[in-house]
Amino acid sequence: MKLWDKGTSVNKRIEEFTVGRDRELDVLLAPFDILGTMAHITMLEGVGLLSKDELNELLKALRAIYQQAVDGQFVIEEGIEDVHSQVELMLTRQLGDIGKKVHSGRSRNDQVLVDLKLYTRSRIEDVVNAVDRLFKMLQHKSNEHKDVLIPGYTHLQVAMPSSFGVWFGAFAESLADDLLLVQAAWRTANQNPLGTAAGYGSSFPLNRTQTTELLGFEDLNYNVGYAQMARGKMERTVAYALSSVAQTLGKLAVDGCLFTSQNFGFLKLPDELTTGSSIMPHKKNPDVFELLRAHCNKLQALPETIGMITANLPTGYFRDLQLIKEVFMPAFDELLDCLDVATFAIENIEVKTDVMQDEKYKLAFSVEEVNKLVLSGVPFRDAYKQVGLAIEAGQFETDGKVNHSHEGSIGNLCNDRVELKKDKIIKEFGFDKVDKALKSLLK
Amino acid sequence: MKLWDKGTSVNKRIEEFTVGRDRELDVLLAPFDILGTMAHITMLEGVGLLSKDELNELLKALRAIYQQAVDGQFVIEEGIEDVHSQVELMLTRQLGDIGKKVHSGRSRNDQVLVDLKLYTRSRIEDVVNAVDRLFKMLQHKSNEHKDVLIPGYTHLQVAMPSSFGVWFGAFAESLADDLLLVQAAWRTANQNPLGTAAGYGSSFPLNRTQTTELLGFEDLNYNVGYAQMARGKMERTVAYALSSVAQTLGKLAVDGCLFTSQNFGFLKLPDELTTGSSIMPHKKNPDVFELLRAHCNKLQALPETIGMITANLPTGYFRDLQLIKEVFMPAFDELLDCLDVATFAIENIEVKTDVMQDEKYKLAFSVEEVNKLVLSGVPFRDAYKQVGLAIEAGQFETDGKVNHSHEGSIGNLCNDRVELKKDKIIKEFGFDKVDKALKSLLK
Amino acid sequence: MKLWDKGTSVNKRIEEFTVGRDRELDVLLAPFDILGTMAHITMLEGVGLLSKDELNELLKALRAIYQQAVDGQFVIEEGIEDVHSQVELMLTRQLGDIGKKVHSGRSRNDQVLVDLKLYTRSRIEDVVNAVDRLFKMLQHKSNEHKDVLIPGYTHLQVAMPSSFGVWFGAFAESLADDLLLVQAAWRTANQNPLGTAAGYGSSFPLNRTQTTELLGFEDLNYNVGYAQMARGKMERTVAYALSSVAQTLGKLAVDGCLFTSQNFGFLKLPDELTTGSSIMPHKKNPDVFELLRAHCNKLQALPETIGMITANLPTGYFRDLQLIKEVFMPAFDELLDCLDVATFAIENIEVKTDVMQDEKYKLAFSVEEVNKLVLSGVPFRDAYKQVGLAIEAGQFETDGKVNHSHEGSIGNLCNDRVELKKDKIIKEFGFDKVDKALKSLLK
Amino acid sequence: MKLWDKGTSVNKRIEEFTVGRDRELDVLLAPFDILGTMAHITMLEGVGLLSKDELNELLKALRAIYQQAVDGQFVIEEGIEDVHSQVELMLTRQLGDIGKKVHSGRSRNDQVLVDLKLYTRSRIEDVVNAVDRLFKMLQHKSNEHKDVLIPGYTHLQVAMPSSFGVWFGAFAESLADDLLLVQAAWRTANQNPLGTAAGYGSSFPLNRTQTTELLGFEDLNYNVGYAQMARGKMERTVAYALSSVAQTLGKLAVDGCLFTSQNFGFLKLPDELTTGSSIMPHKKNPDVFELLRAHCNKLQALPETIGMITANLPTGYFRDLQLIKEVFMPAFDELLDCLDVATFAIENIEVKTDVMQDEKYKLAFSVEEVNKLVLSGVPFRDAYKQVGLAIEAGQFETDGKVNHSHEGSIGNLCNDRVELKKDKIIKEFGFDKVDKALKSLLK
Repeated sequence: MKLWDKGTSVNKRIEEFTVGRDRELDVLLAPFDILGTMAHITMLEGVGLLSKDELNELLKALRAIYQQAVDGQFVIEEGIEDVHSQVELMLTRQLGDIGKKVHSGRSRNDQVLVDLKLYTRSRIEDVVNAVDRLFKMLQHKSNEHKDVLIPGYTHLQVAMPSSFGVWFGAFAESLADDLLLVQAAWRTANQNPLGTAAGYGSSFPLNRTQTTELLGFEDLNYNVGYAQMARGKMERTVAYALSSVAQTLGKLAVDGCLFTSQNFGFLKLPDELTTGSSIMPHKKNPDVFELLRAHCNKLQALPETIGMITANLPTGYFRDLQLIKEVFMPAFDELLDCLDVATFAIENIEVKTDVMQDEKYKLAFSVEEVNKLVLSGVPFRDAYKQVGLAIEAGQFETDGKVNHSHEGSIGNLCNDRVELKKDKIIKEFGFDKVDKALKSLLK
Repeated sequence: MKLWDKGTSVNKRIEEFTVGRDRELDVLLAPFDILGTMAHITMLEGVGLLSKDELNELLKALRAIYQQAVDGQFVIEEGIEDVHSQVELMLTRQLGDIGKKVHSGRSRNDQVLVDLKLYTRSRIEDVVNAVDRLFKMLQHKSNEHKDVLIPGYTHLQVAMPSSFGVWFGAFAESLADDLLLVQAAWRTANQNPLGTAAGYGSSFPLNRTQTTELLGFEDLNYNVGYAQMARGKMERTVAYALSSVAQTLGKLAVDGCLFTSQNFGFLKLPDELTTGSSIMPHKKNPDVFELLRAHCNKLQALPETIGMITANLPTGYFRDLQLIKEVFMPAFDELLDCLDVATFAIENIEVKTDVMQDEKYKLAFSVEEVNKLVLSGVPFRDAYKQVGLAIEAGQFETDGKVNHSHEGSIGNLCNDRVELKKDKIIKEFGFDKVDKALKSLLK
Repeated sequence: MKLWDKGTSVNKRIEEFTVGRDRELDVLLAPFDILGTMAHITMLEGVGLLSKDELNELLKALRAIYQQAVDGQFVIEEGIEDVHSQVELMLTRQLGDIGKKVHSGRSRNDQVLVDLKLYTRSRIEDVVNAVDRLFKMLQHKSNEHKDVLIPGYTHLQVAMPSSFGVWFGAFAESLADDLLLVQAAWRTANQNPLGTAAGYGSSFPLNRTQTTELLGFEDLNYNVGYAQMARGKMERTVAYALSSVAQTLGKLAVDGCLFTSQNFGFLKLPDELTTGSSIMPHKKNPDVFELLRAHCNKLQALPETIGMITANLPTGYFRDLQLIKEVFMPAFDELLDCLDVATFAIENIEVKTDVMQDEKYKLAFSVEEVNKLVLSGVPFRDAYKQVGLAIEAGQFETDGKVNHSHEGSIGNLCNDRVELKKDKIIKEFGFDKVDKALKSLLK
Repeated sequence: MKLWDKGTSVNKRIEEFTVGRDRELDVLLAPFDILGTMAHITMLEGVGLLSKDELNELLKALRAIYQQAVDGQFVIEEGIEDVHSQVELMLTRQLGDIGKKVHSGRSRNDQVLVDLKLYTRSRIEDVVNAVDRLFKMLQHKSNEHKDVLIPGYTHLQVAMPSSFGVWFGAFAESLADDLLLVQAAWRTANQNPLGTAAGYGSSFPLNRTQTTELLGFEDLNYNVGYAQMARGKMERTVAYALSSVAQTLGKLAVDGCLFTSQNFGFLKLPDELTTGSSIMPHKKNPDVFELLRAHCNKLQALPETIGMITANLPTGYFRDLQLIKEVFMPAFDELLDCLDVATFAIENIEVKTDVMQDEKYKLAFSVEEVNKLVLSGVPFRDAYKQVGLAIEAGQFETDGKVNHSHEGSIGNLCNDRVELKKDKIIKEFGFDKVDKALKSLLK
């Protein structure tokens, strides 16, 4: 069934090519499509395009279909083009001609726009929760190991003392910054496109403010042309946000690979988190970090893939935009999987507590010695030279003590203030308002 | 001069290669480097590492150098490695050994971090202002031509009536959404890295909260490791934001190229904004739109360039990060240039007012006719079929009237509400607070 | 079953994450894995590591498994990690301990390398054949419509007369150039990595020259380190080639979308190749071109995705490289699908023969008139001015005739010489030699 | 001066924006523009559009301008739009109206196409020579240190013995593979677009085969539409090739950074190739490798930048294509600089000869021990288990000997055969033929 069927049959080869993976992906949109329809028809009744009775019948049927979708029972039947057609078909089968009325004042263009916005909001909430879990785990480890020193590197050369407190905590704070982009993505998504039809509006007296409230959107995509123009644009904005989280995670994995190498040995994965080699009996490989890294790099290429698909398209809907779903929708699961596995790996990782005993890290304390001289009155540049000459002469000595007290340093990590920063950002999302609106629509 | 000179000479070939374009780009950082130094030494005095008199001498000298930098007189001398060395050299020439004290408790790593943050804040403010100017011009044109109809396209096929009101207005609203990403970039940049030294903090009793306030930062990059980790990450976040603005601008240019073609003829550039051909005497080419489009596409590749440079680097500073300046810093000028030219082109563009008279756009009114039938009681799917059959039979008639009234539609653009949305976002940046802090530091 | 099982169980969550889609993708590698094994054991017998009888038993069993794989009956069983383990398991079940011997002198690293090389060769041959079919269809259409003029554009402004002969033919020649990159990819792939084990070679006295000949490779990846280093590199090289073909195809689709628009109307897709709208009864949309364009743009992002995954990895195998299969292997099918659909669409497309009758294309003949003046003795720059003034005054006249005779021009397309160029490139691949070697190995 | 000047002045702001960096980049094209013009007018005389005397006068003047260009004396004057206009202006100043005749039968479109092809050929030849120099240096080092063992890694875990012979040699072979892509780029560039005018040919009776021979091109871009369509496409193909070389170089730098770290210590840069830290007196940083890596990653983003600029452009010339010069032309110098510096760094790097003495690399010999058991008759899987158990029990022993003899292994690097492979590819370019043609044209 095609909503636009005019009696001419479409060539089979072309149909396969054009439908592509739409049916498979549209199943994931079903709950959101139904929510959009519930808001739409509630509004239609408000403006006199549906009777109260018709509305009630339709809402009841839609609630049942919604439940099916949530339970994973929703199916797009063979020959049905997309989720919109499937829902309309189910309504028509059950209620007859009334079922057809749900499409009044809409196009599939704004339908899929609102579906994607609702879907994206929901997945962003999942991402934020998963980021929060990893954040907490990282801070937990940072606090737990705050006194364990490791060498800090610049240029991958031993530079100064660092600590596991700094190392774990740095990634937590990085996630807090990532949330700023996630929030921008959320705000981009949290605007209502419903009622813009094919990008040029409708002659029906729609009340878009009402559907905005019913669906818990913060505001409207007002301009009908812009609502359509935001297709692809919103996806790329979200991809930027996912890419940012992926970057933090990827860097964690890069360090994970490095620090579990025999040449560093700062971290150890328990055996049951490693894999082996088919020819080398001694190998215990950190595949988990490598695959985290690879997935996160792949995710960081997503914005560019969307960018290529949308590049230089004029305004107005194009079928190209549908293809974005293929790369956009699975990205959430890929990132969530990575966040979950990273949290698990960090939870189970073992830290080595005596790293700094190794002679090769001794020079990491050179700045400490320079600074001691400075605090005793020697000008910095002279202290620097003095210690430098001692090093060249092989006479550098240190007590291996670190006494850093300023904000964010080894001795004063300020993890609690970073947590406050993160909590403030999460609060700004306003998930409560959205959840409340949807609950109200469904009851 | 090199701050780390130990007496061994660096090979000339290697020196050229490693210095690269640093000196040329560092000149642009000079005012910000000086501001950072002023805040740093004010704090050093506060924690007892400078005397009041030393502070005053240094501040006075720095204010003079700042003025030089603002006046374009600041020069990095031959043989001086970077802006940090040049400023220190100037201070030492003038004040002797006191000049060397400005480096206490700092590394060039956190110095360049704070320089880049301050520079980025300043350039983001420029971008927001330029976006605002284009926004206003677009809304002005949208309001001016709100009643001029043009065909709206889907699939580049004539679809439904649109208007210049919708068309200009859509790009304005797109810019409002872009500002969400710009704001995320601003918030990422608006955090203080000063005092984190080489990414592992300092044994000096620094007061980072004080420098945060002096420089008008919203918060600190607390974790010393994260402050360094944010290098490259901040730049990419900003690149995402610039890329988003560029996308809106690029799409405007794509439509500009299309609509000035003889095959559309909706828009006309005045002759003095076009160029000609060396062999075709009739040509008047919209190079301005084409170059806007090309620059904006180039800008959209920036995040990926930064992404490649930073990919898979472990934590800690690497010289790679310096190279990002080469692609990052010029991007602001490139985008600002585009915003400026786009505003100018939109201001001067002529719209054709009788486009819809062309017979080939008649079918754009088919939905209007369908909807009239629906409003008179015919179920949508039946009305759709009826009009479809009339079209096939060549009997479609329309009065060419459009009566759209819902929010964001041709008859009710809601430009004022879009403006409110934009104003709210700009207000959230809090430019005032930053400007006030810097003024206070300089006086 | 894992070839490296040491008795410790791997955590379930980690196992799922690390296995990922390997089993699904490895099924596609099965025939190639078996071919690689057949060559390997033939060589093992040659160097005395297998007896003649063992070899024969193994070859017989492998031929049967190969047939299964070709027939789509090959399955990687639940709990079996990859194709290599599955094949070894099947051999061991059937032949006992002899089955285990196939792994002597190999690692899974060089096994998967050779699998991917053989797979890639096979898929490149498919691509070349599909490109050749589209090439022929384009030249057929170019010859068929060589006298049908259309306007040629520069800056999307009407410029000079062109023809469907030029238009179709241009894409054919573009494909010929694409084949140069495809050939570079082929030559990169057509080198034997077998025998390099985990990237550091083997202490077994392997004869790598023999397996090179048995598998029809042109040469060896000699250096054991390079053979491993080429992983990811080869995939990106191939991605460059696919991306190049996709670019030609994508541009064809861009023009297809433009030229089927009512504003051009140069081309028409038959109704059964178009789709409709759910609200606009008059729409006949060229989704087929739009999806071709979108898929081809997506394919052009593939090199960058691979580039991100492999960026900054040190030498040596990493599990990251396995993830490339997820994006690399499906790209062949995606491109082949596009090539096939494009050939079908071009075959069925209708050209409009009277485009140039439209008054708005008259000025396209301005250069013709300039050149006539030049050929009659007027200096070019003067002729240019004279015609330019006539145009400004609205007095430009033309007979609408085009008389181009030089190589590649409207009147002398040289399609036959372009065909020779293409044929020469295809011949250089040397598919015959490869096919012959594999047939010999299988018989 | 503009070749298309019609008396209307172009707005100053727009002129600045549209000219951009064209004049600066066009200077680099000058020698090639002159060569193209020399070939063009020689042909014009052949088809009767110039007299023999006119030709001789023009050739003489052009030879003098060519010499200026080669000597770095060629200047594009203020107010002159591009190199084509400047050359024509110089001819007209000197020879009067004859000077104008060089533009007959050409457009600036095919002029710049041929300039870029000739420029690209010349730069590719530079790249091939620089690659060859690095190749030789790498093989020299490989042969020199072929007996120095280092640990080989998989998953960055110590895996098996490798050697500096393998390590240096691997990068040499990687360069040989890169040359395959460079050759594809060369063949794409080595086709003549001259005579295709603005992409729609000319009514002049041009002899394009003659200019093809005069300029030493291998073949023609026949189809006039394709010659134009190849703009941007050729640049991206070349960018793929440069990107491939950059990838090899980048990986060399990644290993260089890793292996000079204290945690590996396999390699050491002489002091004069390192830089220091402003606060840490002990630092000797491998900035040279880091900047090599960063430049090479930047270069690997080039194809995508070009891809974005050209994405979804319909056929025909667009001004967008001019912008590609800004990113394309400097890429050659950037890569050549990297190749040169890499060759220098490799020449001067010191290898550590006793790496394998370190106890932590002992298990790298586990496969050797497994294989010894296998060669003594133990089935592989059993030998693997036996050695694995010894390792778990801390009883693994090895003599630290490696005896690899197969092609490409530690004991049999086959560097000579890799050199033959490289030489064969370079020979296929046919630089001689091109050089000979150009010399003949200039004499």
